Amino acid sequence: MTFKFKNVFINDVATVTGPFEKKGPLGKYFDKSYNDFYFGEKTFEKAETKLLQESIDLVLHKTKRDRADLFVSGDLLNQDVSSNLAALNLGIPYLGIYNACATSMEGLIIASSLIDSKKINSAICSVSSHNCTAERQFRYPVEYGGPKPKVATFTATGGASALLSNNLGKVKIESGTIGKVVDLGITDVYNMGAVMAPAAADTIYTHLKDTKRKINYYDLIVTGDLGIYGKKILQDYMKEQFDIELTKYNDCGVMLYDLKDQEVYAGGSGPVCCPLVTYSVILKRMMEGELKRVLVLSTGALHSPTLVNQKISIPAICHAVSLEVTNDIL
Amino acid sequence: MTFKFKNVFINDVATVTGPFEKKGPLGKYFDKSYNDFYFGEKTFEKAETKLLQESIDLVLHKTKRDRADLFVSGDLLNQDVSSNLAALNLGIPYLGIYNACATSMEGLIIASSLIDSKKINSAICSVSSHNCTAERQFRYPVEYGGPKPKVATFTATGGASALLSNNLGKVKIESGTIGKVVDLGITDVYNMGAVMAPAAADTIYTHLKDTKRKINYYDLIVTGDLGIYGKKILQDYMKEQFDIELTKYNDCGVMLYDLKDQEVYAGGSGPVCCPLVTYSVILKRMMEGELKRVLVLSTGALHSPTLVNQKISIPAICHAVSLEVTNDIL
Repeated sequence: MTFKFKNVFINDVATVTGPFEKKGPLGKYFDKSYNDFYFGEKTFEKAETKLLQESIDLVLHKTKRDRADLFVSGDLLNQDVSSNLAALNLGIPYLGIYNACATSMEGLIIASSLIDSKKINSAICSVSSHNCTAERQFRYPVEYGGPKPKVATFTATGGASALLSNNLGKVKIESGTIGKVVDLGITDVYNMGAVMAPAAADTIYTHLKDTKRKINYYDLIVTGDLGIYGKKILQDYMKEQFDIELTKYNDCGVMLYDLKDQEVYAGGSGPVCCPLVTYSVILKRMMEGELKRVLVLSTGALHSPTLVNQKISIPAICHAVSLEVTNDIL
Repeated sequence: MTFKFKNVFINDVATVTGPFEKKGPLGKYFDKSYNDFYFGEKTFEKAETKLLQESIDLVLHKTKRDRADLFVSGDLLNQDVSSNLAALNLGIPYLGIYNACATSMEGLIIASSLIDSKKINSAICSVSSHNCTAERQFRYPVEYGGPKPKVATFTATGGASALLSNNLGKVKIESGTIGKVVDLGITDVYNMGAVMAPAAADTIYTHLKDTKRKINYYDLIVTGDLGIYGKKILQDYMKEQFDIELTKYNDCGVMLYDLKDQEVYAGGSGPVCCPLVTYSVILKRMMEGELKRVLVLSTGALHSPTLVNQKISIPAICHAVSLEVTNDIL
C-alpha cells in the first residue's frame, strides 16, 4: 500500500555516531561522532539514549526550533527504551513504534501522513541503535568475544533524526509504501540479510506496482541493512521473481563501513544504519543535484530470541520512502 | 495534541480471553474464552499469538470481510512478537507499534488518522497480552510463585481487535489525543498504577483543553489499567493539580475482575485490559443507548527491566480516544 504525499519536506536531519561509523567511508558526513562506546555515560543503554537525544537536539538547533508537534521514534531495545527516554526529555506528544530495523521509514510514513493530511505541521522522526546493547540483547554480550560467521552484520551505533514539516524544503517525501510481513523460514540469527531480502523485494515490487513506475524511475535505490550477501540475494531474488534488474542499487549497510578494512563482517545493520547513510551522503548528493529521485527501503528482521529458541523462523518487513528533490528550488 | 475525526467508525470488535477474564464479571460479554493458559499451543508466546489471531479472524468474520487495508498492532512481548506473527498470518500492510499498555488507543489514533484523511478505507487495530509471558518477561515466571504486594496489578490474558472504517457504524471515533511521556520518579515495578496515573491526568487535562470541553461532557471516562489504587491516585491527582472531579469515572482494570473473589491484587493490567473492557461491556452500553459519549484512556508504563536494574525510574504515557454514538442512527 502506497501513500502519496503533497507537501511534506525534510527540513533538516542530524546524525550522531560511535567510533566505527566515524572511521568508515562516510565518517566526515556525520554531525558528531564519539571515539568510544560510552560517551560519558555509565551504561550502554544510557549511551544509546544520549546519541538519540543529541540527534534530536541537533536537528532542532539546525531548524531553529525548540519543539515540533509530534515525536515518532523507535529503537532496537526492548520496550523502545531509548525512544521513551528521549520522548520524556522532549516533552511533546509521542508515538512509539517498532518494526526492528524497518522502524526509520515506518516513522517517516506515519509522520508524513499526518503532515500531509494537515493533522500536524511538523514532526521529529528518530531511531537509534547501539552495537553493545543490541548484541547483548539479541545474541551475546560483545565482551564475551564469540566468533561470528561472515554473513553476520554489525549493528551500527548512532542516533538519527529528521525534522519533517509542511515548510518547503529541498527534499520532499513524495510517497511511502507500508510493507507486509514476509517469512521464508530462516532461523539463523546471524543471517539477517537472507531473512530480510524477500521483504525488501516484496516492498520494491509493491511500490513500483502501486505507483506504476519502472525501476529506472529512481536514480538510486537503497536498502537499509542487508549487508553484502543480503544485497546479492535481493538482486538475484528480484531478477528471478519479478524479472527486475536492480542496477542503480546499493545497501546502506555496505556503504556505512569499509568492508575490507573494518571488522564488520557483511556490513552494517540496526535501525540507525539506514538513516545514518540516507541522512548523510545520500541527502548531500540530492542537495548537490547528483541524485533527484531516491527510493529508501528500511529492512527489518522481526527477530525475537524467545521465538528463535522455540524454533520459530524469523519474520521480516520492509517499508519504503520515495525522496525527491523539490522542483520549485532547482 | 488532539485530532478530530469526521468519518471513522468502529464497525465491529472481537475479544478472546483466558480463564481469569472469563470468570470475571464481564465473562459473558467476550466472544470466546479459554479455560487454561495454553489454548492447545506448546508455549505461552504461541498461546498469546493464538488469542490475537483469533480476535482478528473473528472481527473479519463479523464484518464479513477477508481483509482490511492496514493492520496496526502491538503487544507487551519484546519485539512485538504476537503482533508480528499475526501480521505474517494476515498478509496485509502492517505498522508495528509499542507504547506498552497505552498501545491500544495509540493504534486507534494512527488508524483513525489514516482513514479520516482517506489514505485508507479500513484497518484492523489489535493488541494482546498474556499473564504468563508478561510476568516472565517483566518480573518472574508465574511458576516461581513469588508473592506480590497488594498494589500490584494482574496482566490480563487476551486478544482484542477492532475493525475501523469509513463505513457508517453505530459508534464513531470522534477524536484522539496523543499523550506525552511523564515520569514522577517511581522505580517500584509492582506499583504501575502510581507510575501511570500522572500520565492519565496529563492526557485528560490536555484532551479537555484541546477540545474546550468540561469533564461532564462525557457520560463515562475510563482508564486502561490503573487498578484500584492507581484509580484513587488519579482521582486525587486530578482534583489537586487541575481542580477536576472525576465522578463518572472507572478503570478497566477494576472492571475486568472481581477484586474481592479473584486473586488479581489491585486489578487487571496489560495492553489488552483496556480494549477487553471497552470492546465488550462499554460498547454494549453505548449500543443500548445507556452511554453516548465515552473517553477511553489507555495507560502505559514504559517499564524496562534493564533500566530498572540501572536505577532509572519508570516513564509512562497515556493516549485518549473519544467514542460517540452516531447520531444518524439514534
